Amino acid sequence: MPEEEFEVTPWDVEGNVDYHRLIEKFGTEKVDEELKNRIVENAGENHLYLKRDFIFSHRDMDKVLEDYEEGEDFFLYTGIGPSGKMHIGHIISFYITKWIQQQFDVNVYIQVTDDEKHWDRGMSFEEIEENAEHNIREIAAVGFDPDKTFIFRNREYMGNMYDAAVKIAGKINNSTAQSVFGFEGSTNIGMNFWPAIQCLPTFFEDKRCLIPAAIDQDPYWRIQRDIAEKFGHEKTAAIHSKFIPALTGPEGKMSSSKPKTAIMLDDSAEEIEEKVKKYAFSGGGDTLEEHRKEGADLSVDVSYLWLHSLLLEDDERMKEIAEKYSSGEMLTGEIKQVLIDELTEFLSEHQERKENADRLVEKMMYEGELAQRMWDKKITL
Amino acid sequence: MPEEEFEVTPWDVEGNVDYHRLIEKFGTEKVDEELKNRIVENAGENHLYLKRDFIFSHRDMDKVLEDYEEGEDFFLYTGIGPSGKMHIGHIISFYITKWIQQQFDVNVYIQVTDDEKHWDRGMSFEEIEENAEHNIREIAAVGFDPDKTFIFRNREYMGNMYDAAVKIAGKINNSTAQSVFGFEGSTNIGMNFWPAIQCLPTFFEDKRCLIPAAIDQDPYWRIQRDIAEKFGHEKTAAIHSKFIPALTGPEGKMSSSKPKTAIMLDDSAEEIEEKVKKYAFSGGGDTLEEHRKEGADLSVDVSYLWLHSLLLEDDERMKEIAEKYSSGEMLTGEIKQVLIDELTEFLSEHQERKENADRLVEKMMYEGELAQRMWDKKITL
Repeated sequence: MPEEEFEVTPWDVEGNVDYHRLIEKFGTEKVDEELKNRIVENAGENHLYLKRDFIFSHRDMDKVLEDYEEGEDFFLYTGIGPSGKMHIGHIISFYITKWIQQQFDVNVYIQVTDDEKHWDRGMSFEEIEENAEHNIREIAAVGFDPDKTFIFRNREYMGNMYDAAVKIAGKINNSTAQSVFGFEGSTNIGMNFWPAIQCLPTFFEDKRCLIPAAIDQDPYWRIQRDIAEKFGHEKTAAIHSKFIPALTGPEGKMSSSKPKTAIMLDDSAEEIEEKVKKYAFSGGGDTLEEHRKEGADLSVDVSYLWLHSLLLEDDERMKEIAEKYSSGEMLTGEIKQVLIDELTEFLSEHQERKENADRLVEKMMYEGELAQRMWDKKITL
Repeated sequence: MPEEEFEVTPWDVEGNVDYHRLIEKFGTEKVDEELKNRIVENAGENHLYLKRDFIFSHRDMDKVLEDYEEGEDFFLYTGIGPSGKMHIGHIISFYITKWIQQQFDVNVYIQVTDDEKHWDRGMSFEEIEENAEHNIREIAAVGFDPDKTFIFRNREYMGNMYDAAVKIAGKINNSTAQSVFGFEGSTNIGMNFWPAIQCLPTFFEDKRCLIPAAIDQDPYWRIQRDIAEKFGHEKTAAIHSKFIPALTGPEGKMSSSKPKTAIMLDDSAEEIEEKVKKYAFSGGGDTLEEHRKEGADLSVDVSYLWLHSLLLEDDERMKEIAEKYSSGEMLTGEIKQVLIDELTEFLSEHQERKENADRLVEKMMYEGELAQRMWDKKITL
C-alpha cells in the first residue's frame, strides 16, 4: 500500500492515517481551539487527550455543550468487543469517558458485544465469556461512578432491549449495511443485523448521547444519525480519538494477538521494560553519531508519540523532551526509559484498582443504582 | 399469469398451484399410501386432512415414525404471524397439530411472530399486540393440552432464546437468505435476520422436530435442515398442507383483509350463510338447464373443495355429494347449504371453546407445566 493510501473501517486500520483527510472522508468536524476551550470551561479542567489533540474530531459536541450550558443533561455510551485481553489502546476511550462522567456528573453505558464477536470472528461463547469477564474487570478498574454506570453483556441484556432492536432493524436496510460496512453475500445474517444492536444504547435515555470512541467506529453513529429523529430522539454526538500506533511502529493498530505490538493491561513492570526496550520503534538515528547530528524524527517515534498523546501530563517536560530528542541531545534509550516509567506508573495504578474491582463489577452490572434501574426497565422506542 | 404458471413463497401464493410440481420444485416427498397407513397405525385413528390428501407432502415424516416405533419421542412446532384476525385457513395447521399432539402425546411449541410482522409489513407494535392477543385466544380454543403446549411471543421470549438466535444467525449468510427468500437491498436487516428466529424453535428440545404447516413455509425448514447437524441436532421433519382456496375461487389464498374471500373464525352463523351464498365460487352450470345436463366442475367448486378437504368427515356422504353434484342432480344452492351447515357447526364449537379460553391462554403461555419449564430455561445450542 503506497504511503498516502489508508483504509479505516470498524474492523481494520491500515496504512499511515491522515487525520485531516479522515475528517473530510467521514464528514465529521475538527475539534478546534474554540471547542476545546468550551469543553475545558464546562468541565472545569483540561484533559491530556484534549490538549494534545488525541481527540481530534467530533459530531455535535458543540450541541452537547450548548445543552449542558442551558442545564440539559446528556449521557455517555461506549463499549468493548470481548475478542481477547485488553491492551493499552483499548482502555483509552474508557479513561476519557470516565473523565467526562466525573466532570459532568452523567450516566455511562458500556456495551459488551458478546454477540458480535461470535458473528464477526466465529469465536465460541466460552472464549468470548472468558474474555468478557477479564475485560469487564479492566473497565471497572478505570474508576467509573458505580451508581451511574451500567456495564451489560448483550446476550444477557437482550431480553430488556429486543423491542428496541426490532424497531431499529426495521429502519436500516441491507443496502445501507452493505455500503456503510461493506457487508457481502458471505457475511452472516447476524453480522448484517449487528448495526441495529450497536446503535441501540444511544436510545437508552431520552437525552442526547455522547460517544467517545476511536474514529473507526463512526460509521455506526452515521447510521444512528440517519434514523434517530424517526424515533423522536436526538442524533447521537461523538468525539473521535486517533489510533495509538503499535509499539513496533506507527503503521496500523496494536493487536492483542501480536504481543510485540502492544503493551497489555496486565503486563508486569518487567514485561513493560523488556517490550519497550526490545520493540518500541525508534525515530532516532541509526548510529549515535547520526543521531547526535540529525536528531530523532518525532513523527514516527513510538515512545515520543505514546508519551505525547497518552501519558505525560507535564507540558514543560513534554516540550523539553521534544526539543532535546529531536535535536539529538536526548538518546532513544533515554526517552524509552521515560516511557517505561510512565507506563509502569499508569499500569501499576490501574492494576491495583483492578485487584479490588469485584465489588465494582457487581455494582456496575447488577446492583448499582443505574444498573438496577436498567434491569427493571424495558427499552422502548 | 398463464394457467400453468404459479409462484409459491412464504409471502405469496399466486396462480393455480400444481402440487405435484411443487413437490419436485421444493424437493420434498409425496405423502403416499404407505406413509398414510403408517401414520394411521401409530396414531390409532385416521384424520380427515390425511385421508383427503390435504396433507400431501413431507420431509422425514418416515423418520419421525421410525423413531416413534422404537420408543423415541418427537415434538411439534408451528406458528402464527399476527397480521390480523384469523380466517379458517389460518387455523388448519393448528387443528392437525392438535390431533398429532393428542394421538402421540407430545409437546407443542407455537411461535407468535410479533417481531417479523413489524419487519415484514412495518405494522406498529400496538396493532401487532392486538392481533396477537386475538390470535392466541383462537389458538388456545383449538384444544391443545395446556400442560404440554407453549405459546410464546418472540418479543417477550427473546431473552430466553437470544443465545440460540446468535448461533443460528452465525450459520446463515446473506446469499442464502437472498436466494431462498428473495431478500434484496431494500429489505430491512430485521427481515434479513428473521430466518434465524423462525428456525429457532426446531432446537427447543434435543429430539426430532415435526412441523405441520402449509408448503409455502418450507424454505425456512430447508435452511434449518442445512444447519441442524452443525449443532448436533436432527434435521427438522415437516408435513405440508395444500392451500385452501379463497371463497371467491380456487386461485390464490384467502385473505383477512379481503372479507369476501374468507370465512373469519369469529363470523356468526348469519355472516357465514350470507358469505357462502353470495361469494362461494361455484363450479355448477350457468343455467339450471346447463347444470342438469353438464353437472358441476368439482375441481373449481369452492363448496365442494372446502367440504372435501376440511370439513365433511363422512366418507359415504362425501362420495354421494361428489356423484350427485358432478352429475347435475345436486344443485349449487344445495351444496352451499351443506357447506353452511358444516362451517356453522365447526365454528360454533370453536367459538364456544374460545369463550372459555382465558385460563387456557394463561396456562399455555405462562403457567402450564411446559410453559413454566420454558420460562425457567435458556435455549442453548
